Amino acid sequence: MILDSVNSPKDIKGFDIVQLNDLAAEIRKILLQKMSIHGGHFGSNFGMVEATIALHYVFDSPKDKIVFDVSHQCYTHKILTGRKEAFINPDKYADVSGYTNPNESEHDFFNVGHTSTSVSLACGLAKARDLLGSKENIIAVIGDGALSGGEAYEGLDYARELNSNLIVVVNDNQMSIAENHGGLYKHLESLRNSDGKAENNIFKALGFDYYFVKNGNSIEDLIEAFKNVKDCSRPTVVHICTKKGCGYKFAEESKEDWHWRRSFDVKTGEFVGFSYAGENYDNLAREMLLEKMKSNPAIVIVAAGVPRSLGFIESKRIAAGSQFVDVGIAEQHAITMTAGISKNGGKPIFCTDCSFYQRAYDQISQELCINNLPATLLVRNASIWGMNDITHLGIFDIPLISNIPNMVYLAPTNKQEYLAMLEWSIEQRNHPVAIRIPRNGVHNANYSVDDNYDELNKYQVCRKGKQVAIVALGDFFQLGEEVADTLAKDGIEPTLINPRYITGVDEKLLDELKADHKLVITLEDGILSGGFGEKIASYYGNSDMKVLNYGLKKEFLDRYDPAQILNRNRLTAGQIIEDIIKTARK
Amino acid sequence: MILDSVNSPKDIKGFDIVQLNDLAAEIRKILLQKMSIHGGHFGSNFGMVEATIALHYVFDSPKDKIVFDVSHQCYTHKILTGRKEAFINPDKYADVSGYTNPNESEHDFFNVGHTSTSVSLACGLAKARDLLGSKENIIAVIGDGALSGGEAYEGLDYARELNSNLIVVVNDNQMSIAENHGGLYKHLESLRNSDGKAENNIFKALGFDYYFVKNGNSIEDLIEAFKNVKDCSRPTVVHICTKKGCGYKFAEESKEDWHWRRSFDVKTGEFVGFSYAGENYDNLAREMLLEKMKSNPAIVIVAAGVPRSLGFIESKRIAAGSQFVDVGIAEQHAITMTAGISKNGGKPIFCTDCSFYQRAYDQISQELCINNLPATLLVRNASIWGMNDITHLGIFDIPLISNIPNMVYLAPTNKQEYLAMLEWSIEQRNHPVAIRIPRNGVHNANYSVDDNYDELNKYQVCRKGKQVAIVALGDFFQLGEEVADTLAKDGIEPTLINPRYITGVDEKLLDELKADHKLVITLEDGILSGGFGEKIASYYGNSDMKVLNYGLKKEFLDRYDPAQILNRNRLTAGQIIEDIIKTARK
Repeated sequence: MILDSVNSPKDIKGFDIVQLNDLAAEIRKILLQKMSIHGGHFGSNFGMVEATIALHYVFDSPKDKIVFDVSHQCYTHKILTGRKEAFINPDKYADVSGYTNPNESEHDFFNVGHTSTSVSLACGLAKARDLLGSKENIIAVIGDGALSGGEAYEGLDYARELNSNLIVVVNDNQMSIAENHGGLYKHLESLRNSDGKAENNIFKALGFDYYFVKNGNSIEDLIEAFKNVKDCSRPTVVHICTKKGCGYKFAEESKEDWHWRRSFDVKTGEFVGFSYAGENYDNLAREMLLEKMKSNPAIVIVAAGVPRSLGFIESKRIAAGSQFVDVGIAEQHAITMTAGISKNGGKPIFCTDCSFYQRAYDQISQELCINNLPATLLVRNASIWGMNDITHLGIFDIPLISNIPNMVYLAPTNKQEYLAMLEWSIEQRNHPVAIRIPRNGVHNANYSVDDNYDELNKYQVCRKGKQVAIVALGDFFQLGEEVADTLAKDGIEPTLINPRYITGVDEKLLDELKADHKLVITLEDGILSGGFGEKIASYYGNSDMKVLNYGLKKEFLDRYDPAQILNRNRLTAGQIIEDIIKTARK
Repeated sequence: MILDSVNSPKDIKGFDIVQLNDLAAEIRKILLQKMSIHGGHFGSNFGMVEATIALHYVFDSPKDKIVFDVSHQCYTHKILTGRKEAFINPDKYADVSGYTNPNESEHDFFNVGHTSTSVSLACGLAKARDLLGSKENIIAVIGDGALSGGEAYEGLDYARELNSNLIVVVNDNQMSIAENHGGLYKHLESLRNSDGKAENNIFKALGFDYYFVKNGNSIEDLIEAFKNVKDCSRPTVVHICTKKGCGYKFAEESKEDWHWRRSFDVKTGEFVGFSYAGENYDNLAREMLLEKMKSNPAIVIVAAGVPRSLGFIESKRIAAGSQFVDVGIAEQHAITMTAGISKNGGKPIFCTDCSFYQRAYDQISQELCINNLPATLLVRNASIWGMNDITHLGIFDIPLISNIPNMVYLAPTNKQEYLAMLEWSIEQRNHPVAIRIPRNGVHNANYSVDDNYDELNKYQVCRKGKQVAIVALGDFFQLGEEVADTLAKDGIEPTLINPRYITGVDEKLLDELKADHKLVITLEDGILSGGFGEKIASYYGNSDMKVLNYGLKKEFLDRYDPAQILNRNRLTAGQIIEDIIKTARK
């Protein structure tokens, strides 16, 4: 294999075009093999093989600095920069992350996983370069999907001020995760259809020099373009047209399904391994919403680039029609538009993954909460069992969302409760409501479930005991039940409480507990710092009640094993019981 | 006065052009009079008199819905929509807010105060209109400055998907608060210079129909343009060129100084009334930074549209040269660029007002903190004594910033400590650091001040006492001192602690306090929910230590009196002492 001789970008500098094309073919082969077993971001990586080779052929990384937007398309970059073993040797598949990672290589500059930041990062690298008088090329590689995020535009707008070398490679594969939405995409289409010559060029409008590469999967054409712009002294866009999934038939034909793919059979493209056919919260909510939509045109689902996150695959989006909106990867706009929809009589439901809510804190606070507009935010993967990449953690939302005035943040503990809360949230007109979707599997209710959540911060006492009260939030409720069951066997009958409301303290109940309880423990599936349990501790600060807060330490985790993290944070039932008994004996 | 007959927009529909111009002149007169006494956003309001009259002449508010971006330019709108008394009668000057406010009028749809949201809000209003089958015009009015914020672009990008009536009035007065920065502004200049005919029209690129009005202070021209676009069936931009401060010489000549103006003499334009000539934290930091810059080209100040917030008036920006960067009202880009600067060897210092940090939570968390890049964030007006408009509150930053891993959030209590922390932050290479600038006046240090803050979460014991410990954070330290002094007179010698670090708990010290203290009180200048004191309460949850957390209730305040709010939250020294004595007696 020609790849055998490639251990750093330097090793490809002497290759001729035949060798470079052979290299591309070999890389595609190992990518296919690895992803068929390990899963991964299939489409963009298959599309970017040639462009990555051409970048490393023309530029001198790490002196020249390449910043990949989102960086989910960096697999070929990793292969070329000393990490090929993690793509060739199945035992080492897990050795590298799915994103750029400075701990792995000097060719990676940032941990990146959220969208639309590459141009701003590159502007920063370039600004420091100019201040300190060095001369390297700074290159941002950004997909068309990421161009829907406002920060990408902020970076493009600022770039002209640098008035020095900054190369933005726009990787136009005509897709976000799903299809693109927005005026920009009609514009990119017109640029593609005119070989980059269409009028009203947005990049030129913002002050960039502009180059167009029709075939972004031709190494030869790409090398020519990159050589043209290398060492340029002005902000420059190279618009390259690549094919998502290029080189693998099934991925080319079904781009949305192959954006990210778990293990599959290389011959058929079909999933292999464990397949879960049971209920899941996405589909349960989606079916309920589709049903409600039929009789109520005011209901509208708003998505921000991850339309599938509520189970809205293409056929379901079609079924919802104009009552489903995907605004692109633009969470700020999505939340603000949600506020506008609500103000004019609509009933918006926005859903995205936990860590993406971080991108719209100000809009949640200002547009939704200051204006106290009824709307529903569904918070997905908010859990230690959520996504486990450092950039996509689901453990910071409670401090983020629950400390905003007017917000009602609910934590259902089971299927019936989740659907009841969702139904209530849509129909009520008094508050912005966020719902933290459980992530520990679909459980049925063991206790009665209310239809109405108008009385804020009223916790539910599921079992009345004494001495010890367990306040078990959201999908840690089942952990609380387990602790309660075990304690009961040991002769301690604890009180078990489902707090339901993350955003407030049930002062009446907490006061009542003082009569016959000495210890309250709180359980929450997220960091403790700034979270739910600390509020209970503070409330009891001036009393004799002892309080133990259970949750996660404030730290960034990366590609972790949930069981291990739970254990390290004393979040197993056994550890909690040990602590309770120790405290009770004091 | 013709204004006497105007109590709602309907009343101007029958006016001829002479009457409309008379109305404009009268409005300017009362605006000048009110602002000379009351202060306010001068420049943009003087520029928008004619456009606001023309909007209300052509459109039918509140059926047609006008959304003002930031809404600081809404004074004429308020005058025309039933609120003129608050501009004519000095006794009623304070009756209306400086921003749109749905509690005041059915013509206001949102409380707005942050930038770049109007197009998204308008998209939401339009989407609900289309779903529910009504027909009104939806109009967003957005300044050129606000177009530097990414969310504005997200809204413009999405608008085309609506494919229905949405009118965006771009109010181009060639200024943000200070001069504009970015490629967009060269582009707007080329549009102005070509009567809107320049090539590469960014609005057309995004799919808008586009109209240009050269004289945006001509009611006649504006009426013609608005009539043209009324009831249009496509997203449409009307680009109007207005003059900031139009009609008042001093404001026209010195636009930055007159963006916002406090009370002044109408004849001379000079400030009247109280003028503070003493030290302030902005200037202290600025002078230190300018001095350090001279010997270190790596130091760079990054501002996001509010360059004056660290005292960088124009002359000081010129002095800093390329070591001062204003990226426009683009906080996301600013923080991310800061990360990039840091990565390539620069020493960036970003400064903005407390509530604007809300716009970049994700960038602080992902780009700065996950990557653990050294950089300095100066948090201004983070205090109950900060800005008191509901949209600009400075009381939510502790939950927002302090719960992010890797962040070191410092709370200096006096001048020497602030400057020492700033110096340390710039020189160290281990952490992203945020500093909460005190807001209770410039105090000198009464206790020793450290140079080095490498040892994280080490609190300073300022006075060693017993029984009661007062942990007094940041600019509530002086309140803590007052409480301590008074208690000492009553025979209780409390321990007084300056925690310095908001982001962590000094476990060793807290454990030591158990030996001879029974009560710990915490004081923080912000909401308690998710904040500093709750962490202390949680730490002591399983001990016999009593804890009282003092801070603000989680609520949105609006145009409040700080003394009243402090009193309501039991945050006066007298109230705190009362609580301490009551608890000590228990």
